[in-house]
Amino acid sequence: MTETVQLSLEEVHDLSVRVLTHKGMSAAHAQAIARVITAGQRDECQSHGVYRLLVITHTLRKGKVSGTAEPIVKVRSPAIVSVDAQFAFSQLAFEIGSNQLVTLARATGIAALAINHCFHFSVLWPEVEALAEQGLAAIALTPSHAWVAPAGGTRPALGTNPLAFGWPRHGHPPYVFDFATSTAARGEIELHRRAGQPIPLGWGMDAHGQPTTDPGAVVHGGAMTTFGGHKGSALSTLIELMAGPLIGDLTSIDSLQLDAGGGGTPCHGELILAFDPSRFGLGDLQGDQARAERLFATIVDQGARLPSQRRYEARARSVAHGVTLSYQLYSDVLALLR
Amino acid sequence: MTETVQLSLEEVHDLSVRVLTHKGMSAAHAQAIARVITAGQRDECQSHGVYRLLVITHTLRKGKVSGTAEPIVKVRSPAIVSVDAQFAFSQLAFEIGSNQLVTLARATGIAALAINHCFHFSVLWPEVEALAEQGLAAIALTPSHAWVAPAGGTRPALGTNPLAFGWPRHGHPPYVFDFATSTAARGEIELHRRAGQPIPLGWGMDAHGQPTTDPGAVVHGGAMTTFGGHKGSALSTLIELMAGPLIGDLTSIDSLQLDAGGGGTPCHGELILAFDPSRFGLGDLQGDQARAERLFATIVDQGARLPSQRRYEARARSVAHGVTLSYQLYSDVLALLR
Repeated sequence: MTETVQLSLEEVHDLSVRVLTHKGMSAAHAQAIARVITAGQRDECQSHGVYRLLVITHTLRKGKVSGTAEPIVKVRSPAIVSVDAQFAFSQLAFEIGSNQLVTLARATGIAALAINHCFHFSVLWPEVEALAEQGLAAIALTPSHAWVAPAGGTRPALGTNPLAFGWPRHGHPPYVFDFATSTAARGEIELHRRAGQPIPLGWGMDAHGQPTTDPGAVVHGGAMTTFGGHKGSALSTLIELMAGPLIGDLTSIDSLQLDAGGGGTPCHGELILAFDPSRFGLGDLQGDQARAERLFATIVDQGARLPSQRRYEARARSVAHGVTLSYQLYSDVLALLR
Repeated sequence: MTETVQLSLEEVHDLSVRVLTHKGMSAAHAQAIARVITAGQRDECQSHGVYRLLVITHTLRKGKVSGTAEPIVKVRSPAIVSVDAQFAFSQLAFEIGSNQLVTLARATGIAALAINHCFHFSVLWPEVEALAEQGLAAIALTPSHAWVAPAGGTRPALGTNPLAFGWPRHGHPPYVFDFATSTAARGEIELHRRAGQPIPLGWGMDAHGQPTTDPGAVVHGGAMTTFGGHKGSALSTLIELMAGPLIGDLTSIDSLQLDAGGGGTPCHGELILAFDPSRFGLGDLQGDQARAERLFATIVDQGARLPSQRRYEARARSVAHGVTLSYQLYSDVLALLR
């Protein structure tokens, strides 16, 4: 039996802030990251919860990421706000920029937040969910490192490039999805490699472009695949171009090159689009919402799941009972405070 | 040997205009649709070329679609233009609205064109390509009829919901893709049904939710599948919500219900987003373009194709030598002029 520790969400947040400030991070950065870590642990996304503290502090030690740089916000037009993250993690840049994004989206109906020069490690759903909770539809895109071959190819050209979407609902938490455009997450392949387990055929290919079940062959010299064949591959190029060159930032190819074999967190840009339904619609907001709800009901009533359902169920458990960590993870994190 | 007819692109355009005006369409609508038909034939998208004249005139005869309604353009904010197509086909609404879209996108950096109340039959690439030729990145979305089951479900909830994207390139035609979020196009399944041929397993399911190779079982009472499992299904919901309730228009469920078994063309909205790289970037437009080109080169140099490559090759042939129609199709179209 594994020994476990039970923590409240407040305790997770406070522990995260303590660890991050102890490692030299400014209070503003530590709190922004702690909020995302707490949300990940709360929703039982284990690899994006407390475990991330180990990864973040490791990355900080390498010295490439700033723990203190203050994001520079610039409103560039009635519908564009840019934030220069100055080579810090993305969370604080998002929090500061998203306030401006919401203001612009409400005034103009549509607005974009372009975050530049950020290190990005997290899922995107907290960002689109935060916007949807404020009544906006939201799309978030970011490249990563070039680990993924395009459809019809055998060599990396694309990142795992996630796409996240949030839609505001009345009387329900927002409709949210967040998926990687690679067939599997990079982390899943790494977990298989460490466990000495084969990966399913189709997740990746070896250095010779041959499909393989060997996770090590994919990670070292091989390539991951995109989901959904040429369509997923095309979608991934959209993410590269829109969250990269469009906003004056790097592609996944550039990001991996910049890392120069360091095994570091991707450093690039992120694009978040926000849309105000009350500005786009034709005056029947209730009817619009009812049509969206009918779509959700048609999906749920036939036994299919909405993408965010599992997370929201976990959230209800965590809010009521707190979260459970393995004692091993808990003591590894406490050791960071020494 | 099939008898064929050779036509110049100008002849295709003029023939299309003559047929459409003969059937009562206004000159403005006829010309807008003729341009799209000529582009489809030129790029050898056979089902979106001259053949479409048969479908369009059939739809006009049913009396639901207006052949003469003038689109009503309304600039709603510095970044939103709406066009009420007034239950005509979408092409003229797009042409008129896109002029305004380009103006707004250049001024604000990002802009949206919401087309409402349009009948939609065409591919989306001509629209994003036209915007990319003017130096803008563009995304186009539209629902259709609810023919597609969500991942994990067995009953239709989603349309075939295409997503198109265009990216401007210097010295090259734009980078363009346009794909349905269903595994196969509706038309492909129909073609198999008419030819009495089985469809591949995975394209659809029968009325009992069982995977089937019988195209008739999919079309009558069954459901098509989304591409790429739950990810393609999620992407399809984004298209439903953004090009439907967000802009005050119908979902694919509503559109099919409105059709009431008539077998007609979907009637709903369309959303087109345009982005000006010179407004989003950080001042190094050449560097931004170079990074995008490096992505394309990394894809092409390993033998993978860019999504628009086949169309552009066909286009070069058609511009040089004209297009070839079967004599049967040509005489069917000429018969419409009687």
